[in-house]
Amino acid sequence: MRWLRRLGLILTLPVLLIAVLALYVGVKWALHSQDDDPVRIASKASYLRMVAQGAVSQSGTERPNVLILFYDDLGYGDFGFTGSRAIKTPNIDALAAAGTVLTNFHSASPVCSPARAALLTGRLPLRAGMPQVVYPSGQAIQLINILGETNTRLPLEEITLADVLKADGYRTGMVGKWHLGDAAPSLPNRMGFDSFFGALHSNDMHPFALWRNDRIEVADPADQDSLDRRYTDEALRFLAAGGADKRPFFLYFAHNFPHEPLHAAPADRGKSAAGLYGDVVERLDRGVGEIVAALKAGGQFDNTIIILTSDNGPWFEGSPGMARGRKGQTFEGGMRVPFLVHWPKSLVGGRSLPDQAMGNDLFPTLLDWLAIPLPVDRKIDGQSLRPLLAGEPQPPRITYYYSGKQLMAVSDGRYKYHDRQPILYTLSNGTWALPFPKGPWLFDLSIDPDESYDIAMLRPADAARLKAALDARRVEDRDNPRGWR
Amino acid sequence: MRWLRRLGLILTLPVLLIAVLALYVGVKWALHSQDDDPVRIASKASYLRMVAQGAVSQSGTERPNVLILFYDDLGYGDFGFTGSRAIKTPNIDALAAAGTVLTNFHSASPVCSPARAALLTGRLPLRAGMPQVVYPSGQAIQLINILGETNTRLPLEEITLADVLKADGYRTGMVGKWHLGDAAPSLPNRMGFDSFFGALHSNDMHPFALWRNDRIEVADPADQDSLDRRYTDEALRFLAAGGADKRPFFLYFAHNFPHEPLHAAPADRGKSAAGLYGDVVERLDRGVGEIVAALKAGGQFDNTIIILTSDNGPWFEGSPGMARGRKGQTFEGGMRVPFLVHWPKSLVGGRSLPDQAMGNDLFPTLLDWLAIPLPVDRKIDGQSLRPLLAGEPQPPRITYYYSGKQLMAVSDGRYKYHDRQPILYTLSNGTWALPFPKGPWLFDLSIDPDESYDIAMLRPADAARLKAALDARRVEDRDNPRGWR
Repeated sequence: MRWLRRLGLILTLPVLLIAVLALYVGVKWALHSQDDDPVRIASKASYLRMVAQGAVSQSGTERPNVLILFYDDLGYGDFGFTGSRAIKTPNIDALAAAGTVLTNFHSASPVCSPARAALLTGRLPLRAGMPQVVYPSGQAIQLINILGETNTRLPLEEITLADVLKADGYRTGMVGKWHLGDAAPSLPNRMGFDSFFGALHSNDMHPFALWRNDRIEVADPADQDSLDRRYTDEALRFLAAGGADKRPFFLYFAHNFPHEPLHAAPADRGKSAAGLYGDVVERLDRGVGEIVAALKAGGQFDNTIIILTSDNGPWFEGSPGMARGRKGQTFEGGMRVPFLVHWPKSLVGGRSLPDQAMGNDLFPTLLDWLAIPLPVDRKIDGQSLRPLLAGEPQPPRITYYYSGKQLMAVSDGRYKYHDRQPILYTLSNGTWALPFPKGPWLFDLSIDPDESYDIAMLRPADAARLKAALDARRVEDRDNPRGWR
Repeated sequence: MRWLRRLGLILTLPVLLIAVLALYVGVKWALHSQDDDPVRIASKASYLRMVAQGAVSQSGTERPNVLILFYDDLGYGDFGFTGSRAIKTPNIDALAAAGTVLTNFHSASPVCSPARAALLTGRLPLRAGMPQVVYPSGQAIQLINILGETNTRLPLEEITLADVLKADGYRTGMVGKWHLGDAAPSLPNRMGFDSFFGALHSNDMHPFALWRNDRIEVADPADQDSLDRRYTDEALRFLAAGGADKRPFFLYFAHNFPHEPLHAAPADRGKSAAGLYGDVVERLDRGVGEIVAALKAGGQFDNTIIILTSDNGPWFEGSPGMARGRKGQTFEGGMRVPFLVHWPKSLVGGRSLPDQAMGNDLFPTLLDWLAIPLPVDRKIDGQSLRPLLAGEPQPPRITYYYSGKQLMAVSDGRYKYHDRQPILYTLSNGTWALPFPKGPWLFDLSIDPDESYDIAMLRPADAARLKAALDARRVEDRDNPRGWR
């Protein structure tokens, strides 16, 4: 028995260590809270009632349809109109040529869920309560959200574009990837969409099932070779379903591709000079061609606002368009994304504008076009692009670059100020990877598009001005992270 | 006493763990061996005697001077002639315009020491016995070399360009950064250089002293604000020192800049639109201007071969020229570097060639121009660029991309095959960094310059052909790592 007692003593330290760790995780898990503020949920409801009342008075006017094409991990350089020499996207390029392209458009986040939350709410991810990627419920990887103290689903009090357009009398539909929580009540049908078909998260997460509204229609693992066909057909069906219904439509088509793993139908494979990634993107382009054809056939093309963009820069494949960094990073390659808007009836086409804009601008822009007032109980970070797209000069503005809850950089369009941050240095063979703290850095994007030359000492006034903007925003984030008024 | 015994038992496991670790390191350290092969040292000596005998018979001809300008961590996009919009380098651009530029030139390694070993020996770093960066003697960081089982200095049997040119009757000098070991006998004077002034390693390593031959002339920490001035003056002094001496010269000017930390004299600061990094590079350019002026004044400009390049891609600052990756990586941004050769007397100028070439080609190229036979006791990886630079088409060749001892990728100039390897994914705020194993990947550099689209499945024959070349080289490396014949 003596050796047993000795063994016990020898194991004391490791056992203690594991116990402390388990306790820490347990306490974190137990204390983890999901934002769902009853007061704000009530003010959201009253805002939406107000929108609905306004809609009745407008019911005579011919409101435009709205179609958002949102791709996953698609890089700035992956389209013909953004310079790809390897991928052919004639249908998307045609929309770009006949529409307006913004060349300095950023997603609101370098990763999935936050970018989506910002696009749908008009608020930067921290304010929308969704600063981090959300992981599938009940899986060990969800510890990232628990330990990061972030919501695991979009808080119910957030007002989505679908909520507003639905209240305004739109027929609202979503096809594709939600990724704003896989648990009730934060599911698409509860967040403004009349209909939903798609996945609750990324196509590399499990279980990967396809849902129709609140039920699984295609069980895990859903076949991904046919995913684009299925999604495109669903989108076409949604467009056709209008029929006698005279309401305008809002379709949020948030594709799972070209996020890894890449899949294409056999007939679509081996065609692109850019390999399977190119096959996938070229297939997306053909899907756009089918949708455009359907809109034209239905006489809806002229008065449909088509907006096309991506949620962040490319991951391991895909081109950041000659910029520094990729998905997950606040360098341009992580957040600058392609953007086009096409609306023949009301927007001059054939333009390419260098002005700053961000994914969270779409919410206020659409509300502006539809003459719907913004909610007043919360700060909306996005700015309406209506004046810019109508040909007016855009007043100075600041672009914020967040990584998780942390504000990493700010830019006025020309100068970009990176706060001191860990930059990773690694050898290809993985032998070592040390995050070096670097910065602060000031880059002049006009002559240094790949963020290679720090000019903080050369332009101290610009550095100080942008640092002040960054500091001020951090104070706001600390005092009122969700941006309530 | 009982609590003491208990405490002892509780600490057993950690103490054991530390002891095992210490033992492992100790054994590694004790068993660490430095290559210095007496047989090969002897055959090196006989080769150099043979060169010296050949030199006597040639003493009548007017042999060209050789000047290699080698910069540290300077990126592909950091010069005017390689596309910089932020940095002005008129003197270097003038050499490029009047000389020949190679746009597909790679350093032999994405890091310092191996790149230097390859440049001076004509052999890829593994064969030159220098696959890893070497760290200062006796410091804890040297464990990287010990545990990596690599030499801590260039093996004495290696034949450097300086050895050969000295034997051929050249006056040989080195100014700048050695970084091929900081301990005798592998120091510059023993490795072929009549004179040496500079540092034994990078300017971020300690102690940073400046040596004249085998003595410290400027004690640690040497002032780096005046480093460029000092180096340029030393280079000018070396050029002037010829005087009555009718021998041609070989000057290896291996600058410490623009490697971090960046320093410039007060008069040189605040001038470049690219900040301090730009100030440093523009100052390097002015140094080149001074050297060119001196060569012209001495009537040597026409028959001096000036070669200008870098040891690897840029680190945290500096532009990789719109390529993927940076220093340390086998993506193009880590290894593609600027290159120009200027030799009015014998080379047509005003050319820009897209052909493959590598740092280790300089040794065989110079020997070819000087009609000196290559050593036969060892494999020389580099290929003479004489035919290419004389206007002949270059036969197909393979570029090898090593990281440490590991061959990571091969390219035929158009297609690049990356073997399966860990690619780092990280968020800017450093919250996580997981190396994902990725690949194998085949890139078509002709339409995909930032290595974004894997086409291994689209071009299986090219993938297989290049994989075969990679596998064959790995077998060679395993069976005969140092490439002895």
